Parts: sequence; C-alpha cells; structure tokens
Amino acid sequence: MAGDDHALARGERFIDFQTDPSRYRHWKLDIDGEVANLTMDVDENGGLFEGYQLKLNSYDLGVDIELADAVQRLRFEHPKVKVVILRSGKNRVFCAGANIRMLAGATHAHKVNFCKFTNETRNGLEDSSENSGQRFVTVVNGTAAGGGYELALATDHIILADDGAAAVALPEVPLLAVLPGTGGLTRVVDKRKVRRDHADYFCTIEEGIKGKRAVAWRLVDEIVPNSKLETRVAACAREFAAASKRSGSGKGITLTPLSRTIGESAIRYGHVSVEIDRDARIASISIAAPETPPPADIEGMIAQSASFWPLRLARELDDAILHLRLNELQTAMLVFKSHGEGAKVLAYDAFLEANKSHWLVNEIRHYWKRVLKRIDVTSRTLVALVEPGSCFAGTLAELVFAADRSYMLIGSREGDNRPPPSIGLSAMNFGAYPMSHGLTRLGSRFQADPSDLDRARAQIGKALDAEEAEALGLVTFALDDIDWDDEVRVFLEERASFSPDGLTGMEANLRFVGPETMESKIFSRLTAWQNWIFQRPNAVGEEGALRRYGTGQKAQFDTTRV
Amino acid sequence: MAGDDHALARGERFIDFQTDPSRYRHWKLDIDGEVANLTMDVDENGGLFEGYQLKLNSYDLGVDIELADAVQRLRFEHPKVKVVILRSGKNRVFCAGANIRMLAGATHAHKVNFCKFTNETRNGLEDSSENSGQRFVTVVNGTAAGGGYELALATDHIILADDGAAAVALPEVPLLAVLPGTGGLTRVVDKRKVRRDHADYFCTIEEGIKGKRAVAWRLVDEIVPNSKLETRVAACAREFAAASKRSGSGKGITLTPLSRTIGESAIRYGHVSVEIDRDARIASISIAAPETPPPADIEGMIAQSASFWPLRLARELDDAILHLRLNELQTAMLVFKSHGEGAKVLAYDAFLEANKSHWLVNEIRHYWKRVLKRIDVTSRTLVALVEPGSCFAGTLAELVFAADRSYMLIGSREGDNRPPPSIGLSAMNFGAYPMSHGLTRLGSRFQADPSDLDRARAQIGKALDAEEAEALGLVTFALDDIDWDDEVRVFLEERASFSPDGLTGMEANLRFVGPETMESKIFSRLTAWQNWIFQRPNAVGEEGALRRYGTGQKAQFDTTRV
Repeated sequence: MAGDDHALARGERFIDFQTDPSRYRHWKLDIDGEVANLTMDVDENGGLFEGYQLKLNSYDLGVDIELADAVQRLRFEHPKVKVVILRSGKNRVFCAGANIRMLAGATHAHKVNFCKFTNETRNGLEDSSENSGQRFVTVVNGTAAGGGYELALATDHIILADDGAAAVALPEVPLLAVLPGTGGLTRVVDKRKVRRDHADYFCTIEEGIKGKRAVAWRLVDEIVPNSKLETRVAACAREFAAASKRSGSGKGITLTPLSRTIGESAIRYGHVSVEIDRDARIASISIAAPETPPPADIEGMIAQSASFWPLRLARELDDAILHLRLNELQTAMLVFKSHGEGAKVLAYDAFLEANKSHWLVNEIRHYWKRVLKRIDVTSRTLVALVEPGSCFAGTLAELVFAADRSYMLIGSREGDNRPPPSIGLSAMNFGAYPMSHGLTRLGSRFQADPSDLDRARAQIGKALDAEEAEALGLVTFALDDIDWDDEVRVFLEERASFSPDGLTGMEANLRFVGPETMESKIFSRLTAWQNWIFQRPNAVGEEGALRRYGTGQKAQFDTTRV
Repeated sequence: MAGDDHALARGERFIDFQTDPSRYRHWKLDIDGEVANLTMDVDENGGLFEGYQLKLNSYDLGVDIELADAVQRLRFEHPKVKVVILRSGKNRVFCAGANIRMLAGATHAHKVNFCKFTNETRNGLEDSSENSGQRFVTVVNGTAAGGGYELALATDHIILADDGAAAVALPEVPLLAVLPGTGGLTRVVDKRKVRRDHADYFCTIEEGIKGKRAVAWRLVDEIVPNSKLETRVAACAREFAAASKRSGSGKGITLTPLSRTIGESAIRYGHVSVEIDRDARIASISIAAPETPPPADIEGMIAQSASFWPLRLARELDDAILHLRLNELQTAMLVFKSHGEGAKVLAYDAFLEANKSHWLVNEIRHYWKRVLKRIDVTSRTLVALVEPGSCFAGTLAELVFAADRSYMLIGSREGDNRPPPSIGLSAMNFGAYPMSHGLTRLGSRFQADPSDLDRARAQIGKALDAEEAEALGLVTFALDDIDWDDEVRVFLEERASFSPDGLTGMEANLRFVGPETMESKIFSRLTAWQNWIFQRPNAVGEEGALRRYGTGQKAQFDTTRV
C-alpha cells in the first residue's frame, strides 16, 4: 500500500497518524515551566518501513508524525510554554536529514507525500511561532545536514556549537542529486535571506559551513562554545519567553485519542465518516454538524475539552485526509458531503468569532486554517456536493470553496422530504482561514471583481439556496433534480478517467490564483522541481545518485542539461 | 542534437533562431499605417524536424521562432504600429496548438526548451503591449485549442467569432495528459481572472467553450457574428490605436542580419564570441566593450541603426544564449567573460539613461531586460569571471549579478601588464532590468539588508576593485593570483560532475528570491509541474496519452495519484 520495495514495519497495515507522547519512539517532550525541550533521539530500529535503519538521527515519515504530534500538543496541551528548545539526543550529531535508504526504496508517490507532510510539519512550527507565540530555538550540537538543517531553518533561532566540528549543510545536490526540498532552498534565501550566490556555494558543498562564516552568511544566528552552550541556551530561552505574546495562563486541554474505526472500505469517527469506493476511485467524506448548540461561555468550552465540536471535527478531518493521502493512493477524488443543521454550525462560528482572543479559541481557529490548507495541497480532485440535509455553512462552507468543483441541488429531490439545501456564510469565511498563498478562499474566488466579496459578505448568516448561491458565485453549478444524477455521475466518471498526473498539475496551478508567499513557493516552485527530480533517472534510476548512495559505486549521470 | 526520434528537416545541422519576414514559412506580417496584421498560416510541410506535419495551424519551435522575430521587428522596425491584429490564415481554424506528434517524438530536453522559448515569446507579446504600447488583438475565427488559445491569452483582447463553431479550448488534460503549460493555466486564472472552478471545468472538457458563456466566464472579451467580424475588428483596432501610448513617430530601424560564423566549437559575432569546450562542458561567452564612445545624440544613434553597440550586442547575446540552450544540451556552464574599457560601457549606459524617453532607446532597454531575463531562466550554471582587461560595468555588470557564482581577481596576474579588474555600477543596475519576478538583480541580492542597495548606489560610476566589490557584496569571491587558477578550476570541474537535474532545480529556486509575478509563476509553478508531467509515463510512456494520441488506441494510466 505504501512502498514498492518496503513493507510497513511491525506488521502494520496502514500508516497511522495518531500517536501521543507515551508512544513516541523518536522524540522526548519535557516541559519545564515556560520552556519545553523537544529532543530528537531517533530509534534506529524504529523505521516506519522495513529495510532500513534510521542512523544518525535520520528520519522517515514515522519520525515526523511524532514531531507533528508534539508540536500540536504543545499548542493545545501546554498554553504556558512560550519557548521550545529543539535538540538532539545524540552526542555530536544533530540530524542527518531524511533517511536515504528509505527514500531510495520508496515509491514516487510515497516520496512526494512524505515531503508534503514534512513540509506541513515545518510550516506548522512557523505557524505556532507566529500565531501562538511559541518560539522555537534549535541547538545544533553536531552536523545538521539536509533535512536536519531544514528542520532548524523552520525554527526562529539557530544556535550552532562552535567546536570546530558542528556544522550546517545542505549536501543534497552534490551527494544525492536531489534538492533540499523540504523548504531548504527557499528558506535559505527567502527566510534567512542568505545571498543567492552564497546559497549557491553552500548548497553545493558536502561538508557544510561552521563557525564564523555560518553566522556571517546568516545560516545560523549565533555560534557558542560548547563550554557556554547550556548557559546561552537558557538565556536565550528566557529572552524569547520574555518577548513571547503567548499569555501563558490557562490550563491546557488534553488531546485525547480519537475514537476511530478503520474498516476495509469505511472509516468512522465521531463527526466524520469516510466511504471508499475503490472501483469508482472515490472517497466520500461526510461531515456532521454539531447536535447541540455551542457552550454558553469559555468555561463551557473548556469543560468539553477535546469533545468541543470544532476541535474534534478538525482533528478527525485532519486524520482522514492524511490517511487517504498516504494509504489510499488510487483514490482520484475526495467528495465532501455534510449533514445536520447549518444554523448550529453558524452558532459555533459565532462562538469562535466572539471569543477569538481566548488562547484556546485562537488555537482552534488556526488549527482549522491548517487543516484546510492541508486539503488545498492534497493531490486529489476535491468535490463538494451540496444536497438536501447538508450543512455547508461558515467554516464548513470553506470545503465548498476549497473544492475544484461544487454542485448544489436546486430545490428538493422527489420522495425526499428534507428541505432544499442551503449554504450559509459567516465571518469565518472572510479572513480566518487564509490559504498558503495568503488569500482567503473567497478572495481567491473573486479575483475578477472584489465587489463580489462585498456582495457575499452582505449575505452573512442567511440560508442561501442553490440559485442564490450560484448567482453569488459560491458554487460551480446549481442543478435541478432532473439533471443532478446524470451530471454528477458523468463528471465523477470522467474525472476518474483522466491522467492522475495531469490532474495533479492542473489543480496545483488553478487552486492558487494570484500572489505567492514563502509557504506557497515551497509547495509550488520548490516541491514541483523536486517532484520532477524524483522522477529523473539521474536521481532515482538504477545508476542514479539516490540508489547508488552508500554502495561505494559512483552515480552515472545523463549529462544533458534540461 | 535535438530530438531522439526526429532529425532536423531539410538537412539543417542546428536550430537557427535567426530569420526575417522574407524567409517566413508560417506567418505573414502586413503593415497598414498604425495597424499590423500578423497572420498565422502554418506550412504543414515546413516542420523544424522530420517526421510530422503541422496540420491545422499547429506549431513547433520553428513556427515560434518566426513569431518571436515578427514581434521583435514590430517593436524596432515599425514604431508607427500601435495595434497588431493576430489572425489565422486558415479557414475556420485558428490554431490547434503545439504539434502533438512533434511533442511525442521530442526528447525531454527539447520539450522543456521548446516550452521555455514559447513562453518567452508570449511574455514578449505582453512586454510589447506594456512597454511599447503595441497592443495585440486576437481574432479567433475557428477553434483556438491548447497552445492556440494560450497564444490568444497572451494578447490584450480576444474577439471570438460567434458562429456556433468557433471556440476556445484547453483540452490538454483530457486529451493528452499534459498541462496547458505555455502559460495557459496561469493566464486563465491570474490574467483573465476566470473563477477557479470555472477554469477547472474549462480545462477538463475537450470541446472548449464558445458563444455567450465564453464571454460570461471571461475566456474571451467579446463574441461577434461573422458578418460583422471585420467591421468590429477594424473598430477595435482604431480604439486600441487611439488609446496607445506609443508615440507613432519616427522611422524604424532595420534589424539587419547578424554577422555570425558558427564553427564546430566556436561561434563568432561582432561583439560576442563563444568557445565551447565539450570535454569540460563549458561554453565561455566573451563580450567586447564598445570601441568608440556613444554617439553625440539621438540622430547619431539612429545613423548607427542596428550597429549601435548596445543593440547589436543584445541581439548577438540573445542569439548565442538560444543557440546554446537548444543546440548544446551537454553544456553544463555558461562562463561570462568580457574585455574592453568599462568606462565606455558606462558612457553608453549614460546615453541610454539620458535618452530613455526616446522610443528606440526605450526599445533597446527593454530588449536588454528580456535578454537578461532569458539568461535568468536558462538551465545552465551561470558563472562570471572578472579578470584583468574585463569591462563588467553597468549593463554588463548585470551578467555578474545574474550569475550563480562570480569570481573576481584581486590585483593583477604575474606577467600580465593589464591593470587589475574593476566592476562599475550605473543607473541601469537600479531599475532598468527587473527579473521576471519583479526585483532587480541587485535588489534580489540584497534582500537581507536593503541599505546594501544604497551603499552600492553611492558607488555609481566608480571603478571598484575586487576587495571593494566583495565588501559591497557584488561578487561571490575575490581571489588573488595564487588561488585563482586552482579555485576556479576545481569549482568548474566539480560543478560539471553534479547531476544536471539537481543543478537545474537548485538554480531555479535560488535565483528567484522573494516575490513572484504572473510571469515568474509561469516559469516556476506551471513549468515545473509540466516538466514533471513530461517525465511521467502517463504522458510520455509507450502507453501514455501523448504517444497514443491519434493512434486509435486509448492511453493506459497508472492510476496512482501522486
């Protein structure tokens, strides 16, 4: 299901994105007041797949799943933590980056999806810093190579041990014929603003850069002798904590295990259920509205903790998307459906808007933003079907706006006594959930005439029927009962017949209208080039650098410059 | 040299980018006062390679070389022309796009370079419109499919015949499993601002869109019945001419044939000479400073016509770059050298700056901008060697700033009585030559601290030695005579040993620091995805859609979504 050369280790039948600190194999999370230590100490025998060892703190998707979990829990479970110190648990080794034997043996699809997830995790560190005030400091105590340095690049401050040995390096091009593709190239020049010719030099040497030049070239923020390292790290943690905007008050909530059953062709959560039709290559994701109104106040929300509808739903949806991405590679389309009362969804949106200054509400809003961003970069056709009984309102309407195509039924179905479907807008559709390129989904949609955005805003809170929604530009097609079945069926069948690659490329272009940000550049310019290289014989062929690495045989290159 | 399946037609030994209207096979250029008619009438037996016919106004690189030539001549030779009407010479067919059998038979490298050049040509139409006031109106008299519609998208105004048959279409994804990769996807949503879900629909139907929906969805600007088509086109031409900022005065200058000899391992022009070392995989491009001072005034420049140093040099350099790109695919590096008096180069820059409001000076400046942009997106490592006798000043210093890496000699060489090299800056380095992403090369270079830009500006006109240039951040490394030979040799040898693909991807990322524009998005997001698809079996494999097209056999797809 996942790799052609490797089977999942320990007899696992799918890649599971759920974990918690008690189950970590590769990371340790220690909380000490305002400071957390997040220590990478990879179990070399704990690889996700069989067939390789995770030496020198190299990582695979399994290691990154734990990191993503830790970063998420820091935000929800540890509101007091203002600074996270990212460290290595190995002596004189920080992290050797993505495991090369894992990469060499992985399918193209796994490589691409692995990088996508690791990119999302690193973007998540930056999101935490920017929006939760949890600042990240990396202590590089040895070599931080490739993905190791890319991890450091995603943090706010890099301290490099000045011991004549510790160095940062991006040796992918000279060693492996691939790119530092987990944001490395982009963050070096766009975030750390390393001069492009210095970056060129840095990215073509195997041994990396250490000492004063590492600071002069902006590759790290400071170098500190080993004898003073811990003192400086402690001082740095104090400085960042003092400057953090995180309130530091309040008790965290526990992200309790998701209730989930994964069957052969269905996944059931509390508010999300997924049906997988493998013949049609469709995964239908059905989302349930809340059954009860929102709590009366913040205390009520905290009492509900991880069961609070918006949080629970976000976690379930996130897990479902990741599961489908990595484990159901033949799926061509994600078809979003919903059921329940749109008014209740809007009531929760109102709660999230009225209480947005509360730290937990802030976390939930930013989490929804990240889940929706994850959907935007998922390489499956996204479809929304707005049918009787559905509740695409406010936050849930973002799924309609994220879709490549949406269909909405005009009126009712014969023999169906549910009322005609409606779409509702809330304040959340106008700023809470920017895409990775900085625009909201409605903003992206209404590039031609920004006044369309004002027309939509004027409808906040109203139940818009299919013809109104179509007139406002909120859905692609409004269809009546006579046409619905045929039109939707033909669309889904045709879509499944197209080249998956053509669709991936087309959707990656059409979804991101307008500007780019560092984050979107990572997913477009950098990732698209890396995907190309991951397909090229010079990297992945029998004689390519990725396959030949560590064999003692030199890679053989086709020297044509393309 | 160019394709694996196809040999160049008519016994040509290389792809030649030089042509003129008397030699066009595929286009007609007719000038009528302020209006030019540029008519595409492809000779189906005039393909650049053997093995295919250019039916239905489909095109290959040879067709596009003529288009690029025509657009260029319109700017220089026809200052009175304010509107260009782009038409088809075929009855009820506009243009079927890039020839599919050509694409199916071309090497990966040729496909990629073909698309790059056609993209540059289309960007050139937009540059002409924006900066020369030559507006383009397309008359779509039949089907404009794929690249045919992409050509129309690059113009200012699209008139579609309303005859129940004429349509615009981007059928690449459903028919061919590739992208509308010559800007199509990007221009549909970013330039014409077609709503992204409408674009999704449009790009997945084979038959395209015609009539009122084409206007409502912003795919064309207007539809006109055939009976009124010519009247409307004439009126439209008048409207655009009236609104043009092109002065319309002055006599054009003739772009006379370049003086050029192309030998086995050297190409000689008047001011440019290229030495190709195939063992080292290096093409050295040497540029000569002017030997005489600039003319005293505009009349003097016009008298020099195409021999005016900046114009002649730009044409020669452009031709050399294109020749190397398409015909010397094994070349790993372009090494820029120069010789002559930097002061004379600066004197020409001063002339170009003092007279920038003159239409011809304006054209020359924008042409230099385009040549430099072409260098930026050339997939070869760019190196500048600043040695004694060189003249990297002002406009020529842009080559140093375009380079991935630059080396400058400190002092003189033993036994060389030429003075130490210097670099000079002019006003032209601070705005005249933006890269495709909108920043100048110095602006890109000094992202970390914009005050570096002010420090550099303060040095305009001075001869900066190696240590000064290094301190200002203008060169990568300043080396003395003792280190020079070894350092440069090791760098060039190492660089040639790396994977060409890894370098292409790395350079494409590091060169474009910071923002993106529609133009840069076309070269990054869109092109990088297309290059990936051009490597995928679903498109180019034996059973892929590009190979199977027209055979009656259906393509077979690996249905894994990546």
